[in-house]
Order: sequence, then structure tokens, then C-alpha cells
Amino acid sequence: MRYVFTVQYDGTDFSGYQKQKDRRTVQGELEKAAQNVFGAPVRVCASGRTDAGVHAVGQVCHADGETNTPAEKLAARFNAALPPDVRIVKSAAAPAGFDCTRSVRRKTYVYAAYFAPTVLPLLERYAVRLAEKPSLARMREGARLLEGEHDFKAFSATGSSAKTSVRTIYSLEVSAHTLLMGELFEIRVTGNGFLYNMVRILAGELVSIGLGKGMNGIEGAFRTGERSLLAKTMPAKGLRLEKVEYDAPIFGEEE
Amino acid sequence: MRYVFTVQYDGTDFSGYQKQKDRRTVQGELEKAAQNVFGAPVRVCASGRTDAGVHAVGQVCHADGETNTPAEKLAARFNAALPPDVRIVKSAAAPAGFDCTRSVRRKTYVYAAYFAPTVLPLLERYAVRLAEKPSLARMREGARLLEGEHDFKAFSATGSSAKTSVRTIYSLEVSAHTLLMGELFEIRVTGNGFLYNMVRILAGELVSIGLGKGMNGIEGAFRTGERSLLAKTMPAKGLRLEKVEYDAPIFGEEE
Repeated sequence: MRYVFTVQYDGTDFSGYQKQKDRRTVQGELEKAAQNVFGAPVRVCASGRTDAGVHAVGQVCHADGETNTPAEKLAARFNAALPPDVRIVKSAAAPAGFDCTRSVRRKTYVYAAYFAPTVLPLLERYAVRLAEKPSLARMREGARLLEGEHDFKAFSATGSSAKTSVRTIYSLEVSAHTLLMGELFEIRVTGNGFLYNMVRILAGELVSIGLGKGMNGIEGAFRTGERSLLAKTMPAKGLRLEKVEYDAPIFGEEE
Repeated sequence: MRYVFTVQYDGTDFSGYQKQKDRRTVQGELEKAAQNVFGAPVRVCASGRTDAGVHAVGQVCHADGETNTPAEKLAARFNAALPPDVRIVKSAAAPAGFDCTRSVRRKTYVYAAYFAPTVLPLLERYAVRLAEKPSLARMREGARLLEGEHDFKAFSATGSSAKTSVRTIYSLEVSAHTLLMGELFEIRVTGNGFLYNMVRILAGELVSIGLGKGMNGIEGAFRTGERSLLAKTMPAKGLRLEKVEYDAPIFGEEE
């Protein structure tokens, strides 16, 4: 029996999703809870790994196991065994043929960065401070260049093992919210898939463009695949996996 | 020489604003930094104390001291000596006759609560989970009854030492934001002053009304001053002091 889960976690104190020896990971915690719930070792897969420090509002996972607990009650049983920084928000029986990794159609990530005269303690956990204020209009102009189908080879960490680096970005929106003394920028990107570090590199490039860098870095990066034409990878803590979408709603009609 | 500061803190790991022996407090940390900056013990007053666990986006403080550092550079000197969960966002020379407590004209607090099927790790630090979903329309109806000048005696913890319990609420707005699986409610209240625990009691009463309690609790509470007619005090972590306003902008024109 395959179960599907929506999982939320605060990445701050995790060494990422993927299980590692002697490290505290999201998968490690989920599998400890799964052992409790199913009474046997069970693998808990995710739609994709997230790096150390990256958060997830709505990660999607699946696990195969046998239990008498009704599928929709599994979330509560897991949660009773999980630490407070990771929670199964919803559980259900997986649709036929469902695989949380292979069946993904769209993913949405948000990158949060703020401009303020100093570190803001109430934002610092989930966003990265910028010492200078980027232009929203310029960031949006850069975002337009990234939308669509492109070879994003240059937008990935070296050593990435993906077979193809062509991806489609369906939408890339930059919003700004006024703070007491500063401004919060959110970069929201939806695509059919993302290369390793792609969102953090893309966010870094848009911030750099907002601070005055030319648009030709993006054009050159698409043409040559050269990582060095783009800005630095942004820190993990500003990134959150917002949602993962499949062909059909994984929890039936209600969504 | 009197200096004025806007201070932000994450209240999670503080035993409130006010200095206490053997406890980690905001005032304690600010005064340790002040000793560093001014080379002498200096008291750092706030517009009002906040309880253990309460956050501040824009607390206002003042301190009297002598230094050669220009007033606007004091923030950076303090911040170099402060722990990451408290920061001086801005510093300036105080206007003539300014007292951060006595000169207050208006304060704004926000109370955050969310409805979701389980604890949400990414909201849990700054908001309180509700097991049932309150009606936004009913909460707003209750909020209308609380606006204006009233005797808020019933809306304060017993043993409150304020001379009068008459206060004016200038505005009380309830907003709702859809979450992946749930809803975030924010109660934003601006008034000329607040009694001890007043915002947390008022938030509790509005949530109870949203869940079906009658409006007559508020009417009875105004008439009799009876604390017991109102709902429970909400937990500290959902509360944040948003801003403190004075007759004139404390940092000059730019705001």
C-alpha cells in the first residue's frame, strides 16, 4: 500500500532532506516515525531533495507500508512521533501508479530576501539580508528573460548529474513588501523542474540585476552554459519549496 | 545626551523585556551592549515592557549617555555587541523633552493565529494554532464592538497597576490569508495604550466569537469589568509589538 504525504519543515536545524549517517535530516526523522507507525523499516521518498537549511511549506513524500490505521489518520500518528520542526500536514492513499518524484508536473519555490539597515531578527530565519536595495523594476525585467523553456546549464552547481539541463519556467514573479525600515522581496518561481541550486543561482542573478548588473549575463549564460557569467548562489535559508503539483490532485477533489 | 532607538527582537528566547536577575531579557542584553558603547552602566528604557515570548518589530527605547560616536552610528556599535535575536534598527538623538514611555501617543500590536490540521513548523514560532476555524465575519463583528473609548478593566490580568483602565482603540482590523492547508488570521490593533495582557485577552475573545461565542461577553465585560466573562488569554508567541508612535516622528522627516 502506497501512502502520500504533504510535509512541512523548518530547514534551519536539518542537514537537508536526504538521510545521512550521523546527521539530523528530514528523511531520517520521517523514517524513524515511519518505523514507529508501520512497525518495520520504511523508506520515505520526497518529490526532490532539499539542501541543508532549505525550508518546505508543502513538500510531497510517499512511503509503502502496511497498517490498519486509515490513510487520512496516518498524519496524526506520524506527528506524534515527529520533532516539532517537521510535520505531516496531510496523508492519503496514493493514486494508482503514483510516484512522488517521477510523477511531478510543476514545482513552486519562493526565495525571500530583504533590504534593511541591519539584520532584522524577525526575518532572519527565513530570508536573507541585502546590504543595498535592489530595483524591483529591474528584477522584474530580468525575470521576464528567464521565463519559458531554456537550457539552464549555467544555472546549476557544477557536478549536477541531471541528464538534460533544459527546463521550462512557467512563471517567475518578483514582489516587494514594505517593512518598518526596509523592504522584503519575494521571488516566486514555478517550473517543470529545477536543476541543483538553480533557484538560488537565479535569485542571486536577479538580485544582482536589481543592483545594477546588466541583463547580458543571462543571455550569455543561456548561450554558453557558463556558470561564471552569473552571480553567486544565494544562501539556503532564504529558499522554501512552496508546493509540488501532479497531473491530478493527490488528495482528491477537495483541493 | 538622550538617544532614541528602534529595536526589533524575536521574543522566543527572552524572559521578556524587563531586566531580571539570572534571566535572559531584552533590556539585559541592551544594557550589556550599552555598557560597552558608553563605557559606563546605562539604563535602556522601552515604550513599554513586553512579556516573555512576545516579539517586537518596532519597539522604541531611549538611553542617556555620553559618547563621541555620532547618534546615527550608535545602532551599528550596539549591534556589534548584541546577540542575533535583538537588533537596533535605527538610532538618533532624541527630540527635546522626549521620553520613550511617557511621550507615546499610539501603539500598534498584531496577534497572529492560524487554523490548520496540524502544527505548521514554519508558522509555529510567530503564531498560535487554532484547532477549529473561526469565522472571519464574526471576528470582524466583534472587533467593531471593541473600537473606540471604553473601560477595558475586564480585558486585563488581575493585579494590573494602571491608574485608569479607560483606553481608546483607534482601529481593530482582522485579516485572513489562505495557507496551503489552512488559514492565517491577523488581528491588528492600534490604541492610545494597552493594559497588561489586554491584546492577548482581546484576541482570545475575538477568536472565541469567531468560533461561536455570543457578542454579549464584550458588552457584559464593559458593563461589569468582570474578567471571567471573557475568553482565555492567548499565548505570548502570537503577539508582536508592531510600532510605537509619538507626536512627532522620532527620526525626523524621512518617516
